[in-house]
This record gives sequence, C-alpha cells and structure tokens, in this order.
Amino acid sequence: MDLSGIYPPIVTPFGKDENISVEKLEENFAKWNKHSFRGYVVQGSNGEYAFMRPDEKIMLLSKVRQLAPKDKLIIAGSGCEATRDTIEMTSRMASAGADAALVVTPCFYKGSMNAAALENHFTQVADSSPIPIILYSVPANTGIDLPVECVINLSSHPNIIGVKDSGGDISKIGYMVHKTSGNNFQVLAGSASFLLASYVLGAVGGVCALANVLGSEVCQLHQLYQEGKLDEARLLQHKLILPNTAVTKTYGVAGLKASMDMMGLYGGPTRSPLMRSTQKQMLDIAGIFKEFEGFGG
Amino acid sequence: MDLSGIYPPIVTPFGKDENISVEKLEENFAKWNKHSFRGYVVQGSNGEYAFMRPDEKIMLLSKVRQLAPKDKLIIAGSGCEATRDTIEMTSRMASAGADAALVVTPCFYKGSMNAAALENHFTQVADSSPIPIILYSVPANTGIDLPVECVINLSSHPNIIGVKDSGGDISKIGYMVHKTSGNNFQVLAGSASFLLASYVLGAVGGVCALANVLGSEVCQLHQLYQEGKLDEARLLQHKLILPNTAVTKTYGVAGLKASMDMMGLYGGPTRSPLMRSTQKQMLDIAGIFKEFEGFGG
Amino acid sequence: MDLSGIYPPIVTPFGKDENISVEKLEENFAKWNKHSFRGYVVQGSNGEYAFMRPDEKIMLLSKVRQLAPKDKLIIAGSGCEATRDTIEMTSRMASAGADAALVVTPCFYKGSMNAAALENHFTQVADSSPIPIILYSVPANTGIDLPVECVINLSSHPNIIGVKDSGGDISKIGYMVHKTSGNNFQVLAGSASFLLASYVLGAVGGVCALANVLGSEVCQLHQLYQEGKLDEARLLQHKLILPNTAVTKTYGVAGLKASMDMMGLYGGPTRSPLMRSTQKQMLDIAGIFKEFEGFGG
Amino acid sequence: MDLSGIYPPIVTPFGKDENISVEKLEENFAKWNKHSFRGYVVQGSNGEYAFMRPDEKIMLLSKVRQLAPKDKLIIAGSGCEATRDTIEMTSRMASAGADAALVVTPCFYKGSMNAAALENHFTQVADSSPIPIILYSVPANTGIDLPVECVINLSSHPNIIGVKDSGGDISKIGYMVHKTSGNNFQVLAGSASFLLASYVLGAVGGVCALANVLGSEVCQLHQLYQEGKLDEARLLQHKLILPNTAVTKTYGVAGLKASMDMMGLYGGPTRSPLMRSTQKQMLDIAGIFKEFEGFGG
Repeated sequence: MDLSGIYPPIVTPFGKDENISVEKLEENFAKWNKHSFRGYVVQGSNGEYAFMRPDEKIMLLSKVRQLAPKDKLIIAGSGCEATRDTIEMTSRMASAGADAALVVTPCFYKGSMNAAALENHFTQVADSSPIPIILYSVPANTGIDLPVECVINLSSHPNIIGVKDSGGDISKIGYMVHKTSGNNFQVLAGSASFLLASYVLGAVGGVCALANVLGSEVCQLHQLYQEGKLDEARLLQHKLILPNTAVTKTYGVAGLKASMDMMGLYGGPTRSPLMRSTQKQMLDIAGIFKEFEGFGG
Repeated sequence: MDLSGIYPPIVTPFGKDENISVEKLEENFAKWNKHSFRGYVVQGSNGEYAFMRPDEKIMLLSKVRQLAPKDKLIIAGSGCEATRDTIEMTSRMASAGADAALVVTPCFYKGSMNAAALENHFTQVADSSPIPIILYSVPANTGIDLPVECVINLSSHPNIIGVKDSGGDISKIGYMVHKTSGNNFQVLAGSASFLLASYVLGAVGGVCALANVLGSEVCQLHQLYQEGKLDEARLLQHKLILPNTAVTKTYGVAGLKASMDMMGLYGGPTRSPLMRSTQKQMLDIAGIFKEFEGFGG
Repeated sequence: MDLSGIYPPIVTPFGKDENISVEKLEENFAKWNKHSFRGYVVQGSNGEYAFMRPDEKIMLLSKVRQLAPKDKLIIAGSGCEATRDTIEMTSRMASAGADAALVVTPCFYKGSMNAAALENHFTQVADSSPIPIILYSVPANTGIDLPVECVINLSSHPNIIGVKDSGGDISKIGYMVHKTSGNNFQVLAGSASFLLASYVLGAVGGVCALANVLGSEVCQLHQLYQEGKLDEARLLQHKLILPNTAVTKTYGVAGLKASMDMMGLYGGPTRSPLMRSTQKQMLDIAGIFKEFEGFGG
Repeated sequence: MDLSGIYPPIVTPFGKDENISVEKLEENFAKWNKHSFRGYVVQGSNGEYAFMRPDEKIMLLSKVRQLAPKDKLIIAGSGCEATRDTIEMTSRMASAGADAALVVTPCFYKGSMNAAALENHFTQVADSSPIPIILYSVPANTGIDLPVECVINLSSHPNIIGVKDSGGDISKIGYMVHKTSGNNFQVLAGSASFLLASYVLGAVGGVCALANVLGSEVCQLHQLYQEGKLDEARLLQHKLILPNTAVTKTYGVAGLKASMDMMGLYGGPTRSPLMRSTQKQMLDIAGIFKEFEGFGG
C-alpha cells in the first residue's frame, strides 16, 4: 500500500445539538474531493474521536467510504486506551471499509507506557488486524512521544506499514526513515508546519489538519517537492506555518473549524468540553488567513 | 454529605482473560469491610476505569453497592472526555447506587482545556447530576492540574461538594481550603504520601491507592491526626511514603496489584496495555513492604 | 549547629545605577533585626546572586556580618557552576564571616547532572570547606530537583548539615527527614507557602522570601507551630500563601522588591535583565498585601 | 558579514588538573584548520563556557584568534546572567579579536525571562557592542526557548545579525527565516541533527558540536546541499543523526570529548561537576562511530 500524498484528518461536522450532521459532511466532501488528496483520515485527533461513541465512529466511517472516490485511501483512527477495545474497533473499522487503521499510543497510564508496554500493545493489535496498521504519535495530546526504538522494532512487523508522527522532531523523523528503510515502512508528517522538512528527510506524505481548509495549497506543497522545485516549495512552506499553527497549537480544533467556516467549508461547533472560538480568536484567525491569501497572490 | 475519612480507590480484579472477576471482588471486600473506611471509590484511576466499557462500569458499581455496608459512601468515577458522555454516565452511576460522582478533568485536548472550558464542563455535569459531584485533578495521568481558581469558582455550585487532588501541591491544597471555606466544600488528598500534610492544611480525608493494601495503616493515620497525636502521626506518615510511592508513581497499578497479591488480597493481572510487574519489580516491592512491616513492629 | 528557625534570603538593595547600596542595606537591617529570625541567608536566589561578581558577593557578606547581631547565623550562597569555583567561593565566604554555606545544584549542563555528578560535586565542596554545607535544591530556577537519594547519601557526610528544599514536594520533604534521621541532618523549607506542612513532616525551619517583607508573620507561624497551636498556625499559613505566591512564583524578585517598597522597607530596582514590576503588577501586589493586612486584623 | 557555513563550537581542552591546555588546543587546531569551516565558535555550551572565568575566556579567545587563519570568522560566546556583565564581556571579546558575539539567553530567573525582559537584555547588549550580535537559544541547557516573536523584533536591530537556534523546532526555524527576510538576518542551525532540514527551510549554516570530531563530514553535508545534491545530502544527514545524538543529548560534552579522543583529536577531561564518560558509555560511543565509519564507506 503506497501511502504517498496528503490526507486531511477530517473534522467531524456537528449541528447545534452536537450531533453528527451527515448533510454537512456531504457538503464538505463535495469540496474536498476536488483536491488531489491521497485519501482521508477519519477519526484522528481533529475528528474529535475522543468524544465519539463506537457506533458513531463506525457510522461516520461508512459514510466517508461512500462519499470518497474509490481510489482514495480511507485511514481510520481506531486507537482506544485498552488493547482489547483497540482490537475490536480496528476490526469493525475494517468491516466498515477502512483501508488501514491509525492507532494512537494509549496514554492515560502514561507512567507505565514504557517501550515494552507500547510495543506489546501495537503488536497485539497488528497481529489480529485484518487491515494494515499505522502507528500514531501525537505528544501534544497524549503526553507520550512514541520512542524511536519502538518504531524501529515495530517496523519489521508485516502488518505495520507506517507511522504518523505529529511531534515534529525532524531528527527523529530522519532517523526513523533511515533505520526502517528496507522494512516497507512509510513515514507521514503529522502537520503541515514541518511537511517540507519531513519530505526532505524521506517522509512520503502528510496528515495535515490544515488540509481541511487549505487542501489545495497543502497538495501544492507536496507537488512542488515531487517536482524538485525546492525554492517555490520553501516559500509556500514558509507561508503555511502561521495559518497552520493557528488552527492547531494556538486555537485547536475549534480554531480549525472556525477557519473552515470563514473559508467556505462547514466547520460548525465542537463537542463540549471543547468550546467555540471566541470573537477575539476568530478575528485573529481571520487576519492570519487574509494575510495568507494576500500573500498567495 | 460528610466526606471525612479514608477511601480506597479500589482496583478492579481481573481473571487471566482480563475479564472482571466478581468472585475476587467479593474476596477483597470481605477483607476491606473490616477497616474503618469512610467508603469506597469505584472506577478511579487505580480501578483502570480508562479501560472499562460503560456497561462494565455500571455492573461493577452495582456489585460494590451490594458488597459494601449501607453506611459506606460509594463514590463513582464517571468522568469521560465528552461532556455529554460524562452527564449520561453520572446519571447511570446514580441509578446504580452511587452516593456521589468523582469527575476527572477531560484531558485529550489539553491545549484547549483552559479554565473556561473546564468550568463549563463541570458546571454542565453538576447542573444535570442527580448526585453530588466531586472534582478530580490527577495531573500525572491527565497532564492537567485543575487550576485553583476553577476549583474556587466551582465550589459555590450547590451540587459540587469537594475535590480530590492527586497533584500533591500542598500550597494549592491549603489555598483551596482557605478560599472555599464557607461553601460547604471538602478537600480530599489524592494520595497517602501527602495525607498528613493535607490534614494539617484542612483536608478532611483521603482517597489513597495504598488503602487497597494497607487499609488499616492508612485509617490509623487518619485516626492519629483526629486524636491530635501529631508525633505518632508523623512517624507513621514517614513510613508510608516509600510503600505508597512504590504502588503509585514508581510501579503504577500493576505494582499496586502485585503488592496486594503479596499481602493476602487479590491483585491479579491488569488489562493490556498495562503489563504485569516484572520479577525484578516484584522483588523490589516485596522488599519495601517487608521493611515496612518490620518497622511497623 | 542548630538551624531551627526562620531566615529571610535577603534581597540585595541596588541604587538606580544597579550598584549595591550599602546605605539601603543598613536601613533594611535596622528593621529586620527587630524580628526573631534565626539568621540571614545572603546571596540566595532572591539576593540576585546570579548577577553578582565574586568581589561584590564577599563585600556584601562582610557587611551583613557586621549588621547582624552576633547570635544570628549567616548562611552564604556560594554555589557556582564549576566545582573549583564553588570551592574557592565557599572558602572566601567562610573567611568573610559566614557560619555555613548554601550550595545550589549546578544546572547549566542539566542533561549531565545525574546523581553521580551531583554527589561528586557536593562531596568535593564539603570535603574542602572550612564551614558546614547546606544543600540547596530550587528546581524553578535550575530545572533540577536534587534527587532524594542524593540527599540521603550526602547526609552522612560530616560537613553536610542540611538541605534547603524549594521544590515544595511535601512527600519528598517527609521522606528526607525520615531517612536522614540519625545523621545530624536538618531540613529547611524553601518557601513560606509550604512552611507549616514542612514543620509537621519534621523540617526545623524555613528560608522564606516572604520573610523579607512579612518577617514578623513568618516568625509567628514558626512560633505557633512550636507552641502546638495548630489551628492558629493553619489559619496564618492559609493567609500567607497568596502574598507569598505573589512575591515568588508570580512576580519573582521584582515583585518581592516592589512589595518591600510598599511595606516600608527598601526594595528598589533589580539588576537587568530582571525588570521592575509594571504598574499593573504593582497594583495587584498592593491589593494582595492590603487584603492580607485586613485579614490579619 | 556573511555567516554561511559550518562552525564547530570548539571544546576547551583541559589537562588532568582541569586547567586549559594551550598545547592541546594547538594540536586540535592543526587538524581543524584542514576543514572548510567558515569559522569557529569559542565559548559556546560545548566549550564549557559556564565553567570558565572571565580572564580564561579572554585568553582562550586570543589564542584561537592566533591559531585560526585570518579568513575564518571567530564567534565568541559572551553571554552572562547580568546584562552589565554581558556588555563588558562582549566588549572584551571584541578587543581580543572576536568578529561577532554569540549571546545566550539569561536563564537563572526563568520565571521572569518573558519576551520584554529578553528583548530589553539583547537590545542593551547590541546597542553597546562594538561587534555584531548573534542571538543564542539553547533550551536544553537554559530551559528557555527564545520566543519567535522576540527574534523577529530583534532582527531589525542593526547590530543583531542572526540567531543560533539549538532547539531544533524546524517550524520555528522556517518561520524565523520567513519573517526576518529583508532584515539582513541569518539563521544558524544549532546542531548537526537538523542541519539539512534547516538549510531547506532557509538557514545559512550550522554551529554543530559534531563538527569538533567529524568536521569533514559536516562540511560535506553543507557542500552537498549547496550543490543541490539532495539525495546524497539526505543519506549523509541520516547517518550523522546517531553519532550527533550520542555526543550531544545522550552523553553531553563528556561524550563529545570521549569521541574526539577516539577519533584522533584531543578531548581530555571535562571540568567538574561534569564527569568523564564511563567505560560503558565509551563503548557505546565507540560502537556508534565505528558503525558510522563503516557506513561512510
């Protein structure tokens, strides 16, 4: 399975009652499908997967599988705290049409999530999964940076095909590419802010929150790098950092959804305890995206 | 509701298949009920609540309600990541016999869990709950230390009656007691290591993992403080720190369960991804508890 | 040497040119000497020792030795990054009249400051020092929390007589007292916020920034505890937390100096890069001290 | 002043008595001068500047100025905790022959080192300095990551010509390049591990501990990037990460010096409290460098 390319980790559209709006999902897909994405990540951090019930997760995935063209990869977030739950959810996601599963590090008992525990968890999940597994390290949410030695060890498992790294340590990304080469293992950058650097170090693609709202530009960065247009790629990368930071680190999922509302997609409310962006935050986001567009010229 | 006293946050006994063993739960209660606990916390961090499915949580709570004498308070961990799920779980826990609900800070989207979001979450939960709410701050697991100003603001809510603070910042504990006095608000220490200090600063009780295994001694510390025997209390507190650290910070839930197996209770396996203590860890734990008993003289 | 009691870690008074003002030092001592302090700490963190040149440090210490009554202990901060420099400074401080030296953990190469390196450093210093050594752990400044095992090991050195712990982990403080008992080793709390809790766990005194400005009240807390008046002590402790936090964690040395200016002592400017408190910060500090005084009734 | 190129932050050679060995310095320069370095950084973190006395610093710099060819830039670490000391040291360094000064963030009072304090410090230093200033952010040592907005603001000062960033956040590096373009401001990567990524984002050179020992290879990476040979550059970068990590994050300055001893340069002892690498650490380092050489083919 060739993972090369850009994936938006799609936001989950809610109505005012915080229930999933299939209608708004369809509207967003009508726009997203125009981009040259390699596929979609469903139920990643930006999909508020931590707030979704199991049946909602399955329903959403099935719907996405229908809305996305056949040739798009559907990668499903299936990680739970318990290994047994992760195994079951991965299996259900596969039945619902997922091409691969993205499995986040368990994190509540972080003091005990040493290398042995993490390797054991991922190995059990990969052993039993009907679809390939992609490891997922997102320390800003979990407080755990999947150790590089774990990734290297796990890369030799035949059913573990890659890692999404959202930590942004470019030395780690380079070292993972280096030490897993020959294992049919692919590295995906977990954010648009370090996408170009990741490509240069050997990553094959990116799962980028920003692609929810600036899908065309993120795909363009991928394309420019593929074509060896490094100077143009650098300039575009430079310009993407500020809007990307705004809709991730600074303002989170609510900020991402607010930016979508501004840019012609449907963002809508988040689920509580996440709160809508304040007026002040929205003004800041608007200013950043306006500056970006001006730049884009 | 007077919360004064000691509560073990009970471990959930599993068989080899990682399923709940009601039989072993009964065995443990036969021993726990001999102590002068104020009550039991069900589905706290040490109960591996993060690994339990909703129906398991309810079943376990109902069973505990049967096994515990009527006069023991049953405090149920009902916190979920989503506010809506927390509200529903709290309601179900109340129906199943919980006297109060212990609600942990949501934590996955920690970058967005500012004071406003946390206050809003707890307020919604408290507004709709049929039973009183106890706030729960456990930064070692969640990465979030519930801000002291949040606690103070929330303490005036008529349905929020206290906080369990496992962070161990004794200045914070003192300040919370000070600023919430007059609000019918009670502070519980979240660990035996700082129990005496918390009492001196005005806490009324403790939810102590160590009480699973050294229930008598933790209750004795409570008693000594109540009787004003500060010198004896100090000595006992000194002796409890090392075993307490072993079964919490150092070796986690698996260490706690291992110590129970050693001391005549049922600990048994943890759920994966938590792993059983290694032989080396068990030797260390055994040495620490042996030294403690010798001390206890 | 009996260390029991309260020590202000005295601020260094500067004129507008940032040079030491001996005149202002004398003014402050005229007031400080009225309190029942056990002694003075010179060149601690609040003395801006990190900004002082070696000759300034010696001059200041000599002056303090003259200004303080004979029976007051003078404890001199003599820690430097290099062991050789610490040894020399300790020796010079002794010659200038220090009764004991307070030696902070070196911290610039924190990645290498493991237990072995720290024990080796303190042992070398203690071996060669003409005066007793007090270990000093202040993680908020150094990023290093002197490991409890180091303290226990070092406590058996005949020339190491105690530790000032500013980290505030009350479990660590209790454990240190417990494991060093019998070694003629004394524990000092490094802040007024956890002074009472430290006493209850077995500390003998406190080095408290707040004693620069509220010397009488901090000494009173010591006295109340000594007399077994725990309820009064608790109330006073509660009231001291907020002003103490303001002049340490929240507003730092500049805040402490601002509060002194407000309360009839000389605070004056800090050395750059520390900046004077802003107008807004000063208003906040003033409000906190005003509320405290009202309380004090 | 064009800063483009590679600089080793040279280690300070000590004899067994921990005194500077000029002879060993000369031996190292005889080898270093064969590489195509752009210049040398004297008294950076790897030069154990935190352990050096002012006169030693000046002596060492003067000596380096003699030993280095005229066309090599000499960049002198002149940062001290106090602004006044930094100003004086910068001036003395300039007189002793430094071409530019590398000024680290003050860090002891980290709670007060906000953007305003840092900007004020660097501005004062730059205003009075006879030579250009390069900002220096090294959070692993200082606990402070110089905020990107500070760097951007300071980049417009006519006497501040660049920044050495050792934090390794590639998004920050890209954003700094982007927002300081047009200000005659140059960004240097602070470590060989993220050198290639930094170049691609617009950095002009690197100050790399690893260049002390693998000077030729680090210069080669610079050269490959300049020539647009990205695939070869990537491979070399991959191979440099592990040895670089060993002599920085994992084993620190002692590890770097040990590797120099192995590779035909003079490393020698560190100053206490830094301790020589243990036998086990040296075996690990030797294995890593041997694997690297084999690779290098």
